[in-house]
Amino acid sequence: MKFEITILGSSSALPTSERNTTAQIINHAERFFLIDCGEGTQIRMRQNSVRILRIDHIFISHLHGDHLFGLPGLLNTMNLLGRQKDLNIYAPPELNSFLQAINTYIFTKLGYAINIYPLKDNNKDLLYENKFLKIYSFPVSHRIPTWGFSFEEKKQPRKLIKEAIEQYNIPIVWRPRIKNGEDYITSDRQIIPNEQITKDSPSPRKYVFITDTEYLPSVKKYFDTPINTLYHEATFLDTHKERAQETKHSTASQAGKIATILQAQKLLLGHFSTRYKHIQPFINEAKKEFNKEVHAVRDGDIFSV
Amino acid sequence: MKFEITILGSSSALPTSERNTTAQIINHAERFFLIDCGEGTQIRMRQNSVRILRIDHIFISHLHGDHLFGLPGLLNTMNLLGRQKDLNIYAPPELNSFLQAINTYIFTKLGYAINIYPLKDNNKDLLYENKFLKIYSFPVSHRIPTWGFSFEEKKQPRKLIKEAIEQYNIPIVWRPRIKNGEDYITSDRQIIPNEQITKDSPSPRKYVFITDTEYLPSVKKYFDTPINTLYHEATFLDTHKERAQETKHSTASQAGKIATILQAQKLLLGHFSTRYKHIQPFINEAKKEFNKEVHAVRDGDIFSV
Repeated sequence: MKFEITILGSSSALPTSERNTTAQIINHAERFFLIDCGEGTQIRMRQNSVRILRIDHIFISHLHGDHLFGLPGLLNTMNLLGRQKDLNIYAPPELNSFLQAINTYIFTKLGYAINIYPLKDNNKDLLYENKFLKIYSFPVSHRIPTWGFSFEEKKQPRKLIKEAIEQYNIPIVWRPRIKNGEDYITSDRQIIPNEQITKDSPSPRKYVFITDTEYLPSVKKYFDTPINTLYHEATFLDTHKERAQETKHSTASQAGKIATILQAQKLLLGHFSTRYKHIQPFINEAKKEFNKEVHAVRDGDIFSV
Repeated sequence: MKFEITILGSSSALPTSERNTTAQIINHAERFFLIDCGEGTQIRMRQNSVRILRIDHIFISHLHGDHLFGLPGLLNTMNLLGRQKDLNIYAPPELNSFLQAINTYIFTKLGYAINIYPLKDNNKDLLYENKFLKIYSFPVSHRIPTWGFSFEEKKQPRKLIKEAIEQYNIPIVWRPRIKNGEDYITSDRQIIPNEQITKDSPSPRKYVFITDTEYLPSVKKYFDTPINTLYHEATFLDTHKERAQETKHSTASQAGKIATILQAQKLLLGHFSTRYKHIQPFINEAKKEFNKEVHAVRDGDIFSV
């Protein structure tokens, strides 16, 4: 089952000629979720062949311009492309007033409804659920209210072993019962134990997105099991540790520490300040704190969770 | 004296992977003016080495998103870059409410003032003037109130001929008087006619920007002399002439007709609908109506007026 992240923007407050401000697409089993929507997000979508009308859920971490100034253009484009089905936006409550203001002055009437689900500021909160996936928000600590997001696969039922179906000639009506844990009783009353004819489904995977925040080890309380992939902002290097603290951002080494605390397998770094010319130092500093896979992301990169 | 247009966006309502929505920079004698500000304008500026803080005047043709959704990001970036001097925006009056709404919900306090000059809907109107240039707005005809802009050089005084200065040894105090048209009277009372020691300054140049509009030959009344370069929207080809009329846009051949009516030397076509794969037909159709230089612009193109 596909579980993939496409980076659409990886700069911090200011875009550069190569990096847009924050946005990324999560593709889980061909369902597409957008996290943040910096200016130019819809353009990056076209450059990376993301189908704009396939996005039904948008998650906005906080109301700083570099995380949402692409939203008016994207909503407008969805309208021009003929969207009719509802769009769901999970965002700080004030987004509503912002969209109303844009709507009043700029949009012609949208042909679809926007449902805004306000993020709650106190705890880990289930925002969305389907058969395979749950999506949560959780508060982090920035200059204004800000949330992280967690994409967590649900444990799937055990799977029938193909060879066992053939060996025991298991009828179709029996199969859902076996998947749900029953032993199989053959027509001559023989009992075949469930473990013998099924195998465990793959381990559920977990992707966690954290930007913008100061160093916040207490996020551990939201994750009782290891996570697979962590995206964590790394606006600064250690040389600007004080500046990180002042602006409530993180350094690359702090991102590495959080990855270690959350027992991640893979760390993606982004939201780089434009003051730095090179990104290799971000990887180096994070690796001192986290001894597994580390990437400094670029626009257009795709990662498997 | 430099008089140059840099195209920052050339698509119509929808951006593509290669074309942003409308924006262009006019460089007149190293003064920089921005016309329209589609999403991603600040990113194109960086890609084309336009210095963002050198822009003091922004002209917005109308309040459709593809002409202004880059404005919040640009204003925010100017702030982050430390702008302190006033920014002047010439725009439909409702832009004020739009910016106030953004300001209320998104901006931290801007470190500079924005002066908004509302466009007037009835006639050609002088918006800006310096020693060398006048900038006017004039109404065109779209689904909502929309304006074109005209950048018109002022006729400069006659220039002293270098050789004449040497020949007659003309003192410095005399030179401004001669530039203003006086004959030169030498120390021995000899009268040297002005035409003999001065030459005419170059002909003033004129750049006219027209988007979005239906075919509107009556714009002729705003231009009593030929113009040098015309940028005119060409959203459609002749095959979609009816669609152009319905949406109050122009075809390439209509743009060509306007160029002929305004006695232009050069025609720049832009604002192409994304339904077309190729742009050569726009040039071909415009050339049937206008027998001089025609370009179908691309993002990053630079043209001299």
